[in-house]
Amino acid sequence: MNRSSPRTSSVDLVRWQSGVPWAVEDQVAVEEPLEIRVGGRSLAVVMRTPGHDRELAAGFLLTEGVVSSGRELLDLVYCSDTSTPSENILNAVLAPGVAMDWERLQRHTFSSSSCGLCGKASIEAVRVRCAPLAATAEPVSAAVLAALPDRLRAAQADFAVTGGLHASGLFTAAGELRVLREDVGRHNALDKVVGWALQRDTLPLAGHLLLVSGRVSFELMQKALVAGISCVAAISAPTSLAVAFARESGQTLVGFVRGSRLNVYAGTLSA
Amino acid sequence: MNRSSPRTSSVDLVRWQSGVPWAVEDQVAVEEPLEIRVGGRSLAVVMRTPGHDRELAAGFLLTEGVVSSGRELLDLVYCSDTSTPSENILNAVLAPGVAMDWERLQRHTFSSSSCGLCGKASIEAVRVRCAPLAATAEPVSAAVLAALPDRLRAAQADFAVTGGLHASGLFTAAGELRVLREDVGRHNALDKVVGWALQRDTLPLAGHLLLVSGRVSFELMQKALVAGISCVAAISAPTSLAVAFARESGQTLVGFVRGSRLNVYAGTLSA
Repeated sequence: MNRSSPRTSSVDLVRWQSGVPWAVEDQVAVEEPLEIRVGGRSLAVVMRTPGHDRELAAGFLLTEGVVSSGRELLDLVYCSDTSTPSENILNAVLAPGVAMDWERLQRHTFSSSSCGLCGKASIEAVRVRCAPLAATAEPVSAAVLAALPDRLRAAQADFAVTGGLHASGLFTAAGELRVLREDVGRHNALDKVVGWALQRDTLPLAGHLLLVSGRVSFELMQKALVAGISCVAAISAPTSLAVAFARESGQTLVGFVRGSRLNVYAGTLSA
Repeated sequence: MNRSSPRTSSVDLVRWQSGVPWAVEDQVAVEEPLEIRVGGRSLAVVMRTPGHDRELAAGFLLTEGVVSSGRELLDLVYCSDTSTPSENILNAVLAPGVAMDWERLQRHTFSSSSCGLCGKASIEAVRVRCAPLAATAEPVSAAVLAALPDRLRAAQADFAVTGGLHASGLFTAAGELRVLREDVGRHNALDKVVGWALQRDTLPLAGHLLLVSGRVSFELMQKALVAGISCVAAISAPTSLAVAFARESGQTLVGFVRGSRLNVYAGTLSA
């Protein structure tokens, strides 16, 4: 399997078509572990698509509650040990005085990691460090939202190639794309966007729109809330808990944005 | 949000169509936390779609390496504490003599939970407790595989309703559906299938075919290997690490099973 680009790799395979096998070469999305360390100690190993790793680590550290601002994160440095390539380990250097409560973090991260494991403990945790959003002055425009999927796809080169990368796009309230990130993990794609903003000191992302290529779970809404994103839109469906969380948090949640049609599950849009 | 069935719930929303808002009611996939305890101590909180919870917990305990057979799992009992509904907590009673290494398990589960967090530590862990499969005598039939998606969809009632549930179907080598499970989490759907087999004492699942509705990550292949499933097929794409893992493990991995076409990324099919 030769790396042909950072996000996809070519693979030899056999394609059966109408009962006949053909040897072909095709692209798959790259999935590799990234170990995130803090002060030299391992905090988490994230299965991710390489690229924008510093953004991913920075966003992860923010949305998982390790840091609360870019000022608390002095640096992210690639390092290595004897068995793992150095590009798969990032060590975070925190500002002096930023306390690490490892027991709380491991319990929290353990219980809220990505789209499969989460829970009550982390719901309580996000409530503590992240109050519901204040009512937004300007409702988001339905017409603006309806135009976003085409812009996301136009900017998303790899999806058509592999069919295996999730996208997360951050737009201004007027619908202008600010940043697009892709990953095999939906939450990673969002963490990369959040890390991008953190590194530019533009958090919280009030007044921005987030469009994700897939479904919306509770934890995606939680990560968006920590970043101050008040409007999350998705090409596909939200879960029941994502809807409940958005309503409690004062977030706007829109699903099934397809053509001129969309579903508003929480919040209110303008025309 | 009123529960209309265990797996979906109805939600009031506003549908915008061509610039006009309409109040409608629609279905979303239910996402709720399930806390899995062992001997009264919390091991993990899984965000799952309610239903087949004992299967989910049993499959999770097996594929995460807590138990190695159904004999080690005496019972799974719903319990409650003061703040969480009892249907969201399952306590596992292990057989006498089954040792729990909490430190290893928390580190392992922490680093391999679901589709976002995983890593080298867990790759090593699964290698330790799960050797690569022996070469299978009978290659899987491409014609049988091509027929599975229609059978999965026919058996999958909820997907069309919510668009938000992943399916995991276990088939015999002849293509007969043995069990179908659905969940908001791809890994949960597989764990439910594995737990179903564990409760019937039919592990390992050698000679069976697994069809999943979405993409295939490294961790899905890992869970399948622990259950002895030698052939995994998917409607969508595999990741690079899923392909590499399948080749190392002696598993057959097939992606993009659509119509009369499919891609074989690892292993060999017969016509």
